[in-house]
Amino acid sequence: MNHYGYRDLRPGMKVSFDAVLDEEKLDMFRKITGDINPLHNDRSYAESKGYRERVVFGMLSASLMSTLAGVYLPGEKSLIQSVESKFIKPVILNDVITVTGEITDMNDSVQRIELKVTMTNDRGEKVLKGKMQVLVNG
Amino acid sequence: MNHYGYRDLRPGMKVSFDAVLDEEKLDMFRKITGDINPLHNDRSYAESKGYRERVVFGMLSASLMSTLAGVYLPGEKSLIQSVESKFIKPVILNDVITVTGEITDMNDSVQRIELKVTMTNDRGEKVLKGKMQVLVNG
Repeated sequence: MNHYGYRDLRPGMKVSFDAVLDEEKLDMFRKITGDINPLHNDRSYAESKGYRERVVFGMLSASLMSTLAGVYLPGEKSLIQSVESKFIKPVILNDVITVTGEITDMNDSVQRIELKVTMTNDRGEKVLKGKMQVLVNG
Repeated sequence: MNHYGYRDLRPGMKVSFDAVLDEEKLDMFRKITGDINPLHNDRSYAESKGYRERVVFGMLSASLMSTLAGVYLPGEKSLIQSVESKFIKPVILNDVITVTGEITDMNDSVQRIELKVTMTNDRGEKVLKGKMQVLVNG
């Protein structure tokens, strides 16, 4: 985990990490949210809709933004204030997702950074485009 | 689970449901995301920052929007296209969150609805304000 204070940060700073969105994570996310939609939980239903496997909950992919801010940029001193995400392509079970965040703006008066977020799958396709505003508490 | 098709939906339609964000959900969310930030995982750290208990991951609260669209409005035929959330007040471990979604706009040419989302805690405080665009696949 990183421990950046606001003064350690600069526009252009960038981090990346990978995550595999596997069956165990899909199951836990369903238990957390109660989202029993068959697109995410029933392979033959997903196939009937034209997917080769169950589709990963969009909000499960988006949840990796929690890790981006809370562990990497800025890490410990993170307080997420707002998040925007656009789901560009479906994430399919067992896709390896690369999450990249870059500081695009900084607001000194409230110690807030703005991150541009992109997520790509292991076939090089962009699956999610996002933006976050994060207060840096220290 | 609801099975609304696009033609069943109207602006002004509204749903609400409750969820308790408890320790088990916090633990599962940490396992899914790898977000080990101590604000969510260490009670005494959270207390040292002025909270009475661990703070629930903002993106865990936001994940209830998955349920809102995928189970309730429109339910089965939901394909979330984009999500915005603003975290207004921290959610504290074991808070009971009421999630409300209302259709504010409909785009007939692409069968897309727009939902206004609010989440309140059991002390009547608004904790999250959001917006979603959801394609209705059928």
